Amino acid sequence: MNTQLPIGVFDSGVGGLTVVKEIMNQLPDETIIYFGDTARVPYGNKSQETIVKYSRQIAQFLLKERVKAIVIACNTASAFALETLQKECPVPVLGVVKPGARAAAEVSANGRIGVIGTEGTVRSGLYGTYIREIRPEVSVYGKACPLFVPLVEEGLCEDEVTVLMAKRYLQPLLAESVDTIVLGCTHYPLLRGVVAQVAGPEVTLVNPAFETAKDLRELLTKKGLLARKDRTPEHRFYVSDGAEQFRAFANSILPCEMIETDAVNVKVFA
Amino acid sequence: MNTQLPIGVFDSGVGGLTVVKEIMNQLPDETIIYFGDTARVPYGNKSQETIVKYSRQIAQFLLKERVKAIVIACNTASAFALETLQKECPVPVLGVVKPGARAAAEVSANGRIGVIGTEGTVRSGLYGTYIREIRPEVSVYGKACPLFVPLVEEGLCEDEVTVLMAKRYLQPLLAESVDTIVLGCTHYPLLRGVVAQVAGPEVTLVNPAFETAKDLRELLTKKGLLARKDRTPEHRFYVSDGAEQFRAFANSILPCEMIETDAVNVKVFA
Repeated sequence: MNTQLPIGVFDSGVGGLTVVKEIMNQLPDETIIYFGDTARVPYGNKSQETIVKYSRQIAQFLLKERVKAIVIACNTASAFALETLQKECPVPVLGVVKPGARAAAEVSANGRIGVIGTEGTVRSGLYGTYIREIRPEVSVYGKACPLFVPLVEEGLCEDEVTVLMAKRYLQPLLAESVDTIVLGCTHYPLLRGVVAQVAGPEVTLVNPAFETAKDLRELLTKKGLLARKDRTPEHRFYVSDGAEQFRAFANSILPCEMIETDAVNVKVFA
Repeated sequence: MNTQLPIGVFDSGVGGLTVVKEIMNQLPDETIIYFGDTARVPYGNKSQETIVKYSRQIAQFLLKERVKAIVIACNTASAFALETLQKECPVPVLGVVKPGARAAAEVSANGRIGVIGTEGTVRSGLYGTYIREIRPEVSVYGKACPLFVPLVEEGLCEDEVTVLMAKRYLQPLLAESVDTIVLGCTHYPLLRGVVAQVAGPEVTLVNPAFETAKDLRELLTKKGLLARKDRTPEHRFYVSDGAEQFRAFANSILPCEMIETDAVNVKVFA
């Protein structure tokens, strides 16, 4: 396979850009094709059947763009659709849940781990399943935080309202004396400051976006698929709706020139 | 047309149930078929093109169920798709925006009206357009409140966080001395208490759900389409995803027996 082919990254919306950012940092020579399903966001409260259907459609789109690997940069889609896509796709497929789970299992000293995420991710219990595959004795406590995504998208990452909600959401986890919290939703790294402030210095925060980029690097190295440093990558961003809002959010997260040289295209399914 | 045929009501999700509730109160003999597009919620941040496409699909579904009228119980879809559906459907189609606008125009003493809603509804400016068709001299001030829907769906209708956000969202409207505020999103009647508390007793709140049911009554009367009181209506509720969550929310809003006798069916498009 041509090592200069792009990596496909998809998410239910803008949140997956935190994963793109980590890939850009750790794998600066790779070209990224991003798909944000902004017309059908959020995935967090949808059924497994629906998430699998959407993920399949997006994988088909990315495969037509000739990607050499696919990263599911959405916790809900990783929880529900990873195995299906791994079975059906002719290229390697990574999710964000396994790398995050592995890091949490490695990092926890007291074996008490909290996972925060959307309803869907928490209900799936998949972080717990993966963590216990590595360390069966560990206790995992999940807590859905449905207001965190809209708070981030309102630009209230450091706001008193966000602190109030974080206190409420984290309280049951802290009551269980967790020493590790997985930021189990792609938006949550942007709330890292508030979560760290509320959780206190004894709690380690795990960012699955960072761990996923690390795993991707290992995978590409192992398969001999790392891109050669022979040109500046030309990333492409697609959304299924609302390109303008996407662009604004992307510019606040990614190095600006990435977005400004390659305009966001709109691709509507069905 | 058979007067015993049902009325079709649709919304992007659960919010439209506030409209259903008003119709049940004001037109207790009518049978309702509700469609909540929970798989594609929210509509508030989607483009006009997408909203029109979704609304058309849902109208087709309701027409196949042989409805005698359609109520668009979603402010965003009313703002974007009302005219299209009125042109294309063989039955009368009502939205929630016009009735809400008419009531606001009638009720305001000082001619300064605030409209709160989703990004889409506020950006469309349609409440303002309709209000000024009736009273051209009126000033209309819009304010999007993106956190209100997730706050309602989190069950925080009376919470201090909601009060904090309401103070922030309403402040610019109150600074313009509005004497009327339109609750321009179907979820917002559930925040009536907090909005009234923050806005103060001088401000009148307009509930478009109530006004829409009133207009529907008038329309059915005028067209000779009012249902005869010859049986207990058997309402039917459809959602495109997550029937269980829908049922829980519906039970908190509607008279319980409505939901418990007629289970929620799931209908997935495409």
